[in-house]
Amino acid sequence: MNFETIKSNIKAFVEKELITLEPWILNAEWEEKLPKLNELREKTKAQGLWLPQIPKEYGGLGLTNAEHGEVSEILAANPYGHYCFNCQAPDAGNMEILIEFGTDAQKEQYLYPLLRGEIRSCFAMTEPDHAGSNPVKMGSVALKDGDNYVINGHKWFTSACDGASFAIAMLVTDPEGDNPHERASQIIVPLDTEGFEFVRNVSIMGHTGGGWESHAEIKFNDCKVPLTNVLGKDGAGFAIAQARLGPGRIHHCMRWIGICERSLDLMCKRAVSREIAEGEYLSDKQTIQNWISESRAEINAARLLVQDAAHKIDIQGAKNTRAEISIIKFFCADILQKVVDRAIQVHGALGMTDDIILSYFYRHERAARIYDGADEVHKSRLARAILKKYKV
Amino acid sequence: MNFETIKSNIKAFVEKELITLEPWILNAEWEEKLPKLNELREKTKAQGLWLPQIPKEYGGLGLTNAEHGEVSEILAANPYGHYCFNCQAPDAGNMEILIEFGTDAQKEQYLYPLLRGEIRSCFAMTEPDHAGSNPVKMGSVALKDGDNYVINGHKWFTSACDGASFAIAMLVTDPEGDNPHERASQIIVPLDTEGFEFVRNVSIMGHTGGGWESHAEIKFNDCKVPLTNVLGKDGAGFAIAQARLGPGRIHHCMRWIGICERSLDLMCKRAVSREIAEGEYLSDKQTIQNWISESRAEINAARLLVQDAAHKIDIQGAKNTRAEISIIKFFCADILQKVVDRAIQVHGALGMTDDIILSYFYRHERAARIYDGADEVHKSRLARAILKKYKV
Amino acid sequence: MNFETIKSNIKAFVEKELITLEPWILNAEWEEKLPKLNELREKTKAQGLWLPQIPKEYGGLGLTNAEHGEVSEILAANPYGHYCFNCQAPDAGNMEILIEFGTDAQKEQYLYPLLRGEIRSCFAMTEPDHAGSNPVKMGSVALKDGDNYVINGHKWFTSACDGASFAIAMLVTDPEGDNPHERASQIIVPLDTEGFEFVRNVSIMGHTGGGWESHAEIKFNDCKVPLTNVLGKDGAGFAIAQARLGPGRIHHCMRWIGICERSLDLMCKRAVSREIAEGEYLSDKQTIQNWISESRAEINAARLLVQDAAHKIDIQGAKNTRAEISIIKFFCADILQKVVDRAIQVHGALGMTDDIILSYFYRHERAARIYDGADEVHKSRLARAILKKYKV
Amino acid sequence: MNFETIKSNIKAFVEKELITLEPWILNAEWEEKLPKLNELREKTKAQGLWLPQIPKEYGGLGLTNAEHGEVSEILAANPYGHYCFNCQAPDAGNMEILIEFGTDAQKEQYLYPLLRGEIRSCFAMTEPDHAGSNPVKMGSVALKDGDNYVINGHKWFTSACDGASFAIAMLVTDPEGDNPHERASQIIVPLDTEGFEFVRNVSIMGHTGGGWESHAEIKFNDCKVPLTNVLGKDGAGFAIAQARLGPGRIHHCMRWIGICERSLDLMCKRAVSREIAEGEYLSDKQTIQNWISESRAEINAARLLVQDAAHKIDIQGAKNTRAEISIIKFFCADILQKVVDRAIQVHGALGMTDDIILSYFYRHERAARIYDGADEVHKSRLARAILKKYKV
Repeated sequence: MNFETIKSNIKAFVEKELITLEPWILNAEWEEKLPKLNELREKTKAQGLWLPQIPKEYGGLGLTNAEHGEVSEILAANPYGHYCFNCQAPDAGNMEILIEFGTDAQKEQYLYPLLRGEIRSCFAMTEPDHAGSNPVKMGSVALKDGDNYVINGHKWFTSACDGASFAIAMLVTDPEGDNPHERASQIIVPLDTEGFEFVRNVSIMGHTGGGWESHAEIKFNDCKVPLTNVLGKDGAGFAIAQARLGPGRIHHCMRWIGICERSLDLMCKRAVSREIAEGEYLSDKQTIQNWISESRAEINAARLLVQDAAHKIDIQGAKNTRAEISIIKFFCADILQKVVDRAIQVHGALGMTDDIILSYFYRHERAARIYDGADEVHKSRLARAILKKYKV
Repeated sequence: MNFETIKSNIKAFVEKELITLEPWILNAEWEEKLPKLNELREKTKAQGLWLPQIPKEYGGLGLTNAEHGEVSEILAANPYGHYCFNCQAPDAGNMEILIEFGTDAQKEQYLYPLLRGEIRSCFAMTEPDHAGSNPVKMGSVALKDGDNYVINGHKWFTSACDGASFAIAMLVTDPEGDNPHERASQIIVPLDTEGFEFVRNVSIMGHTGGGWESHAEIKFNDCKVPLTNVLGKDGAGFAIAQARLGPGRIHHCMRWIGICERSLDLMCKRAVSREIAEGEYLSDKQTIQNWISESRAEINAARLLVQDAAHKIDIQGAKNTRAEISIIKFFCADILQKVVDRAIQVHGALGMTDDIILSYFYRHERAARIYDGADEVHKSRLARAILKKYKV
Repeated sequence: MNFETIKSNIKAFVEKELITLEPWILNAEWEEKLPKLNELREKTKAQGLWLPQIPKEYGGLGLTNAEHGEVSEILAANPYGHYCFNCQAPDAGNMEILIEFGTDAQKEQYLYPLLRGEIRSCFAMTEPDHAGSNPVKMGSVALKDGDNYVINGHKWFTSACDGASFAIAMLVTDPEGDNPHERASQIIVPLDTEGFEFVRNVSIMGHTGGGWESHAEIKFNDCKVPLTNVLGKDGAGFAIAQARLGPGRIHHCMRWIGICERSLDLMCKRAVSREIAEGEYLSDKQTIQNWISESRAEINAARLLVQDAAHKIDIQGAKNTRAEISIIKFFCADILQKVVDRAIQVHGALGMTDDIILSYFYRHERAARIYDGADEVHKSRLARAILKKYKV
Repeated sequence: MNFETIKSNIKAFVEKELITLEPWILNAEWEEKLPKLNELREKTKAQGLWLPQIPKEYGGLGLTNAEHGEVSEILAANPYGHYCFNCQAPDAGNMEILIEFGTDAQKEQYLYPLLRGEIRSCFAMTEPDHAGSNPVKMGSVALKDGDNYVINGHKWFTSACDGASFAIAMLVTDPEGDNPHERASQIIVPLDTEGFEFVRNVSIMGHTGGGWESHAEIKFNDCKVPLTNVLGKDGAGFAIAQARLGPGRIHHCMRWIGICERSLDLMCKRAVSREIAEGEYLSDKQTIQNWISESRAEINAARLLVQDAAHKIDIQGAKNTRAEISIIKFFCADILQKVVDRAIQVHGALGMTDDIILSYFYRHERAARIYDGADEVHKSRLARAILKKYKV
């Protein structure tokens, strides 16, 4: 199957199998929709579309970053797109890390079941008491004690923790280390470890959710895991996070662009079909026309920026593409919110309802300007990088 | 009790009785919180603060429009503020109409129980198949048949219908009438009338809600109500709607301003308490400072505009204050969304959660730019009114 | 003459005598238009409208701050409005200071000729090498030497210096003073003082201008003036500047609002008269309608904010109204730029030309966001004041 | 000379020969600076950099559209960049048209002297009495009379007319033609033709300018030119205008991007050098950082959009790239105004002066949102094109 075929098959799947499920799937509880989603996962496997982003030797389609970006845009039309193909966050990032940094034993125990879709995982980084913008101030620790780490800490926004088999947790392993960026490690913590406390699924935008659709608050109370559960090596936590972040950002942004495309598409459909006076349609109103054109321009600009960043990551590495990665973070998050907001406004009262998907996007994607570094943090960082060249 | 005492008592009540209930009350189902709310209603009655907006002869505090605007701002700090004092939409507007246009019999049957808080009511105007911006295109009809109206129609966004005793419905009574603004009437429809169909509570922003917190889709299938159920007179539907809209707009806008004040207050509290680096707080960041100052300026501006419109309604009538009423509609709705959005951003991940109230405001108040005439409709209307003076 | 008559006479004067002179007066050199302006000044004197802002005992009309605000809005329709009534900056501010702080001798020599319109003056504060936002960092000094101050310094944006008789200069008189806000004084410097160097009229937005319409760069090279030339007392420079700033801000903002009203008026006239297709006018385009309505709303909001600040200055003093004064500074400057920009866009190519006044506003009023404290400085200051209440 | 060498030589020329001339050259009259500019033109010829955009067979460097776009960005750092290399508007567009549509005789008489820089030309399209957005409503006509066209009409914004040898004028040659897009022709009119009336150089943003830096109002009063002066063929006016517009838009947008880069560069230089408090620089302020980062992101996005459009023009023709061309028009014009505005604000009072180039950009480039189709017109057109696919 060449890439064009893969894309058109994936697009057809999303349109036929997922979009037709809206709004049922948007209003159901996780437990209700899980059987349906598992059924759809079987279909994508059967169609040979499973794990598009994973190297062929691990059973995936082996798409490049840029290619998976395009796929990610298509999948984003529905919130369950990525899940059906087993490339959903945070599992996709965890798979990636395990492939790159995992030992054979780690792969055997954690990676392969994940690739097969038998288990789910989570990623525990954000802490309620420390600003995410300052990773040096993390409070959760994993201290060495013989062959074990003893873990104590408090995390939240541990997405998809509810029902997951293990977490990859960012933990301070060397609190007094000279280099603040080598103080933390990423450690695999099975969730049945004694001392692991599932506090709650935090209610987000009106829903606690459940299963893959949830964001847990958790505590580690003297959890013991063997030293061999560290990823890469002790102190490599930030370096691995950086490695994860670059391509992850590309796929996130492409997902946002997919949401924008879906929203613009709905906007256009509504505009031509809603009659506001005898023979006059919403599409005849210049304000609506402005929104459509501005959205078109901004989405195109965003996509080109993301593709450009993806290309640069490929040729010069994520480390040398930090400026571009910051740019796509805040530029795309801003566009995303604007386009979704316009789409809702074009739909009027209907846009507020869960009869269409826009309200879902509106609620869930507000976080885009906040997570993985608030836009404001990226702007300051980028500016400082730019200004460095000017300082004498 | 003078007005200053009333205000400070109401403010104390909101802070002590309601804000302390957050976030429990934000995350509970209607049925769970109803007993608590009824208990609070008893307290406001006991404190002599019940029905602030209602004339004294009807058992209220007899506040002027401008005074109730100030109260409305205070109550808006929590979504149940208005409810506890029995001045919540849509009941408040229905009371107002019944007082102004109701017959003695109508008052006896519908108004007094409403004033006592024994029943709830709803207002059925919006239709799924017709643009709200064009009232002439309404599709629901009430045709005279002997002593009755026979009502057929389809409405949605009939807020608080679930559990209400009666609706005031806007219905076309004279489809072929020469004056399109005299074709409709407002008619009282008891919800136990045969043929009344409660289709569903429409899921809005992720929740179907229930009770007072719901927005129903309903149908009238050959519902019969006596001709005496009309408000004012046959054909007066629009005139009454206009009369309702002016002061209603003031109170809505003051409610929005109250939400803005609450959001700004939370923004400031967060800014001074969130440490982002050693000894550096969010409040030290210039972007946060900008948001606080811009919010302060915009809220002040919005309040002055609303007070000015209220004053003009008082001296020249709502009809001659249409320009000012359009202005406060779109100006305040715009500010509202901006201020709430900034407050969320200042809170970072916490702002997405239901641990604080901002996510509630974010979801529920997005409708502000849509209902009672989308902002775009008001802008076009206002411009045409302004330009009329320029045309030769 | 009651206030309403004063206003309508002034409005009639501006419309008949000044607006009809556009665009000649916008495109002429200062020397060319001076005779015409002097002629108009004689007319305003003859009509008893001279010096509206000055107390009656000094020969003015004795308007209150709020009243002169209204007049200032009317005068702003044309850039020479204030000049014709001798209430133009910087002379008006200088008159005010001299009335409040001047000795009899100072009044005799500097104030009265100014009131009569026989001489002009300037105010020298801004320095090219020091940020205006930090008054403590001023570099120009006036050191006591016997009965004299010996002045050395470098200023620019000394508006209307070219042809003025004297400057009121802000100068550091006590560089080591404990209280940084008592280090500077305001000192009268006649411009024929030896050592005063007129460097140039700085070219601003394409024009060096001349006379009253210029912004000079100047130097003081060992200029000697008697100690009696100080205003108020030695060290009172900042206090006097503060006293000047409050009411000055009101009048500035009302002038900006006047410019907005003029721009909106032109926008509407153009919209109804410009045919863009058979029978379709610019005024039929929704984008234009949006601009008109948004401008109307924003101008109304700005005016109410300014009136509110004026009222508060009157009852609680400028010192306790600093928050409101900061708000009107940045709020009105922002609105001003937006409204003028929209007006130009509505005029298309014509808006770029000096056939109408908009290009003049566009160029000259860009400074509004910069002078008297950049908007960004006011926002930070205001935020810090707001946040002070929140800090523990 | 390969392209990289061409670019670096051009860049060096702009920096060494032009930027060092600021602000003298910004404040001089055309006649004063002409000798200097002619001298610089001799240098670019001597360096083999003359006519970068012109095919080699016509004596140019033969750059592709995309390559000349990059050059155009470099040249834009100074307003005389394009002039020094003889690729300035409107001559460059006229050369292009003459190369593509000119007869041998037309080339001999008009093109070759233009290529050599011996004469200048202008393009007469815009009319004061007709909206530029509606080309069908043009009022100037060229009626056939024997072997001649007899031309009558009124044009303005005929840029660089003052001192030009000929105009290419857009004129209605077939007023009653069935196809409104075949009614007009482009006709060469030597400016010494009898009946040609140079009304005035219109004062734009405070300056009438002169020579190449001017925008004339002109009239054709029974001007006779031979029928052979038509370009292409009679009725081909719009087709030729379209052909001109595509690549012209690319170069315009790249020029705007060059202005943005220059402005951002100045912004950064100022930010790191302006001390606002002891040891604190403008670059430490988060607002300034935001502006720098947002500008960087927006400029990158704009450039990618323009490059993408250029690429599409190359492979699918300008006619099929209309959507992209509309997008870059309004997207880049918007960015341009924002970035220049921010740069001015960062410079404070200095930004208002002609001591640096920003005020020049501010005044001259405000037209970007107006000419070649106001942004609003492009947005409506684009939206209608997008919506066409949705209509049933």
